[in-house]
Amino acid sequence: MPVVVFRPSGRRIEVEPGTRLTEACRLAGFSLPSPCGGAGLCGKCRVRILAGEVSAARHEPCLSAEQLAQGWRCACLPADYGDLVIADPAEDGEDGVILTEFLARPPRGESGIWERELALPPPSPADARDDQTRLMEALGEIETQKGLERPEVDLPLLAGLPEVLRRSDFHCRAVGVGGRLVSLRGRAEGNREAKLGLAVDLGTTTLAAALCDLDDGAILAAAARDNPQGIRGNDVISRIEYASRGSGELDEMRRLAVGAIEELAAKAAESAKVSGRLVLIAVGGNPAMAHLLLGVPAAALAASPFVPAFRESPPLSASSLGWRGGDAPLLWLVPGVSAFVGGDIVAGLLAHDVARLDGSTLFLDIGTNGEIALAAAGRLHTAAAAAGPAFEGARIAQGMRAASGAVCRVGLAVDGALRSEIVGGGPARGICGTGLLDAAATLRRVGVIDPGGRLLSRDEAGAELSALHPDILSRLHGKPDGPAFWLVHPSASGGSGVALTQRDVREFQLAKGAVAAGVRILLETAGLAPETLDRTLLAGGFGSYLDPASALATGLLPAGIRPERVRSVGNAALAGTRLFLLSEEERAAAGDLARSAAYVDLSNRDGFQIAFAREMLFPET
Amino acid sequence: MPVVVFRPSGRRIEVEPGTRLTEACRLAGFSLPSPCGGAGLCGKCRVRILAGEVSAARHEPCLSAEQLAQGWRCACLPADYGDLVIADPAEDGEDGVILTEFLARPPRGESGIWERELALPPPSPADARDDQTRLMEALGEIETQKGLERPEVDLPLLAGLPEVLRRSDFHCRAVGVGGRLVSLRGRAEGNREAKLGLAVDLGTTTLAAALCDLDDGAILAAAARDNPQGIRGNDVISRIEYASRGSGELDEMRRLAVGAIEELAAKAAESAKVSGRLVLIAVGGNPAMAHLLLGVPAAALAASPFVPAFRESPPLSASSLGWRGGDAPLLWLVPGVSAFVGGDIVAGLLAHDVARLDGSTLFLDIGTNGEIALAAAGRLHTAAAAAGPAFEGARIAQGMRAASGAVCRVGLAVDGALRSEIVGGGPARGICGTGLLDAAATLRRVGVIDPGGRLLSRDEAGAELSALHPDILSRLHGKPDGPAFWLVHPSASGGSGVALTQRDVREFQLAKGAVAAGVRILLETAGLAPETLDRTLLAGGFGSYLDPASALATGLLPAGIRPERVRSVGNAALAGTRLFLLSEEERAAAGDLARSAAYVDLSNRDGFQIAFAREMLFPET
Repeated sequence: MPVVVFRPSGRRIEVEPGTRLTEACRLAGFSLPSPCGGAGLCGKCRVRILAGEVSAARHEPCLSAEQLAQGWRCACLPADYGDLVIADPAEDGEDGVILTEFLARPPRGESGIWERELALPPPSPADARDDQTRLMEALGEIETQKGLERPEVDLPLLAGLPEVLRRSDFHCRAVGVGGRLVSLRGRAEGNREAKLGLAVDLGTTTLAAALCDLDDGAILAAAARDNPQGIRGNDVISRIEYASRGSGELDEMRRLAVGAIEELAAKAAESAKVSGRLVLIAVGGNPAMAHLLLGVPAAALAASPFVPAFRESPPLSASSLGWRGGDAPLLWLVPGVSAFVGGDIVAGLLAHDVARLDGSTLFLDIGTNGEIALAAAGRLHTAAAAAGPAFEGARIAQGMRAASGAVCRVGLAVDGALRSEIVGGGPARGICGTGLLDAAATLRRVGVIDPGGRLLSRDEAGAELSALHPDILSRLHGKPDGPAFWLVHPSASGGSGVALTQRDVREFQLAKGAVAAGVRILLETAGLAPETLDRTLLAGGFGSYLDPASALATGLLPAGIRPERVRSVGNAALAGTRLFLLSEEERAAAGDLARSAAYVDLSNRDGFQIAFAREMLFPET
Repeated sequence: MPVVVFRPSGRRIEVEPGTRLTEACRLAGFSLPSPCGGAGLCGKCRVRILAGEVSAARHEPCLSAEQLAQGWRCACLPADYGDLVIADPAEDGEDGVILTEFLARPPRGESGIWERELALPPPSPADARDDQTRLMEALGEIETQKGLERPEVDLPLLAGLPEVLRRSDFHCRAVGVGGRLVSLRGRAEGNREAKLGLAVDLGTTTLAAALCDLDDGAILAAAARDNPQGIRGNDVISRIEYASRGSGELDEMRRLAVGAIEELAAKAAESAKVSGRLVLIAVGGNPAMAHLLLGVPAAALAASPFVPAFRESPPLSASSLGWRGGDAPLLWLVPGVSAFVGGDIVAGLLAHDVARLDGSTLFLDIGTNGEIALAAAGRLHTAAAAAGPAFEGARIAQGMRAASGAVCRVGLAVDGALRSEIVGGGPARGICGTGLLDAAATLRRVGVIDPGGRLLSRDEAGAELSALHPDILSRLHGKPDGPAFWLVHPSASGGSGVALTQRDVREFQLAKGAVAAGVRILLETAGLAPETLDRTLLAGGFGSYLDPASALATGLLPAGIRPERVRSVGNAALAGTRLFLLSEEERAAAGDLARSAAYVDLSNRDGFQIAFAREMLFPET
């Protein structure tokens, strides 16, 4: 079997002949980006072969002859190879900016989590009752929302019961959630152990988590990481396709997601320096992520009429999902609305009291999908606009996630020259969503992009720009497939520069047009004009970091929305998932929200295509 | 790695050096008997090496020099070997007599199992609700014992939901038990599928099962097999010890038990030639078997004060126990009473209405333990007597289970000679429990065994026997460790003959003394004399086949019990487990029985040691 060694890390694995390099990297612990889902179309999973031969089975469409000569290969393509040495791949997202900040309001109501210190009578020949009966008698009935209940002991807990009781001389602490006994520990001598809860924003690209003290709701630590399912495709559709191949693949997706949550729990506990027992995990995710986390087939989410298998689920024993840690917490999903509007959005609406606020509220969470909610006159409408992954860097020539080296801010300096900010301040490697939005807004503002989205050539733009914006003019250049614009000139960056192409502008138009059309349709449904909207809340990584002025200048937000009423709210999904974690009342409110929300299917909506076509244009300046 | 080939089967495996031969046989699919739990003390796991060298790591205490020379080795001992050829081991229990017959009374009450044919509205763009909501709406509320309930869908069922619904155009049949939805299938065109239930008597040595139609209770087929956990020790204690080594071992025991039940279900369905869906499995087992089936540590069952982890369990999804079949039935354990009186006994008491009968009833199920129940004056007392495995052939020089070649009946012919019956009629290989009991009774009757249990030598017995029983006299012979008695003379069997030794008689005395003392104590507790007992029911393999006259002649049943009031009832555990399977009322009655039964701990009981010593003696003739 071929041996693959990575340098400089020195990691070493043996693989079956024919194993794709993506898989080889994964086995060695490297997670490669794979925005195109392994179709060999984006080149973002490229690795550099330092020694050994890789005979590509077919033409590599996204690498230049020079790159190929330097040993670069797309890791996702079929390849034959013997022993290899590969340069350690730069891991996607490792240093990416994952939004774990949010505006936290305190939870309302009680946590529903109880704790009892129990001193069971130890068994004796005269009292040889079984452990379970002994425990249940000591526990008695628990007051829950449904009244007095005798808690249930599930099988993993029962299996641990004999040892826990005997190790602690039958003195133990029981912790439960509502009618469920979740955790039983020998009574620690002296100090009490904290009861911990983990709120998880389970995103397609990234996971963000907040570790909380369940007694007082305090956030003890945040943690984030990329979604390891990314190795099977960066977008929802390719992951669903992968998971639909068979039960092994579906199972793999479940294991990857559960493993990532376990890792976040450990990471957060370590950075918070708390030891405690993890009692409850709340997860807010989009519907596809929720299905894959539970190991439920998700194919019906991806084909018309787009039907989820479930919208809500009772709290599950994490061990039934393959959780391997010492604690066996309950895992509770925030309920969703439809195949495209999931628990993450419901959590966001919950966090910002969208259904309770006076007046009208537009809530936008833009990632791969642009999820939109509009609350007005006591009604809640939701929709999902297929924005595509442009805002996350895919399908953009030099697109990337908001990791170090990404151009994330673009604007005009007082001297009329272009200024840009780069994540981490270092050399520019590409452009992320907010950079793309700013670039489009800036170029539209100075007229380099026309209202139809055409990028002017240097000749066409020359007359107007030479006086006011000579710097801008100097950045326009030609590429074989049309004009392009240097956001970062090769000479300035010491690298190959970062350019925006005509095709990038078209991708941007498709993405922003879909979102804006969705907003338009929802506004029409509610009978509102953009001008009358009381507030617009922008959530999610892209939504929170984007410049609202750019959103209005490009028409990502429909014209008429008043800039002073637009507000970024950070990771609203995580904020709301935390509330769901912390209170019974919030859990009930999330259920009400999810049930009461009307889902508007944009693609089947009269007028959507026309609105989409119109919103793809840029506003007149 | 050494290669082990079996002849004549031709099975072939590679094993790690140092693998015990028991394990090698197991890997090749042979299950060896191991009554001593792998301690090398009983010689019953012996295999014959046809080619290759096995250098025994220590002296084999239970094989003769002649057997060692012929290539026989105890498979359970540590051994070094290279490539080997081994004669196919005769598998223990393969042709053993496993009792699947029982006296079946019809179940009382309703099954609690429901079926609904559902035509769900197929999803459309205008109705894209999730599958679960769609299903629940069609199902509506189910009338259960607790009132109207909305059934719960567990995770494995949810995971199967999208496919089932889409394969059948959203027409399906749902089957449930009480408030639990258990099975969902696409509506079969034309004929209806039967709803099947499996009642399992999960014994330490053997499993017996009855496949039933849940609609009418009809027994469609019976099936039986040895308990594959036997490879880890034939008795409960050695299995508990094995399972206590670590979670891997505990898990192995669970998998072996679940796998055996799966196999029985398949076997029974095949012999009944029915296809249907398996909805419910009811299991009656002793407490240790019940713990190991659920993967719950059982160590506390084996040490004073003998405490089970649980006595009853809610119905469990079989898939949570590792059931791999297509159906995912519920598995429901018959509740037990104490660490020694389990669901098998409760089932037996249920089957024979022991708690409802007028007068007084003694119920005895004798296997490795002798479980005893006494119902009188509205009270139910239970106890377990540590009979030891003598009645199952262990610790008896030529003891074996009731498989072909076992001497199973012994008595006097009209001419005063000994007569015996052999299972299968073929050459005698050993003696089973009923044969041992009859032999002891017969030898006591003719005076060859004295009231203290001493086996007379030929000289001592000569005077009395020569006239009436010359055949008996001729069978007495000397062995180095004392007198012995040929039950089957080597000359008659063409083999090495079957003899009863003085030590065998002592083992028998210990076993029968324990049971009889237990019965005495329970009778005393209830204030009854043996003469006043209205009925004695003998259950289980040994109990059902034994000759009540021998039981009285040897004092296995205390003197005073009237022979005409003793009745064999067959596999009462299986009979009662079937009732538990078939009706909610019977399940409730079993729960009441288990809860109301008082457990009498014989070992800690004043007077037990004295009763035991007295009952070890034989009655005067």
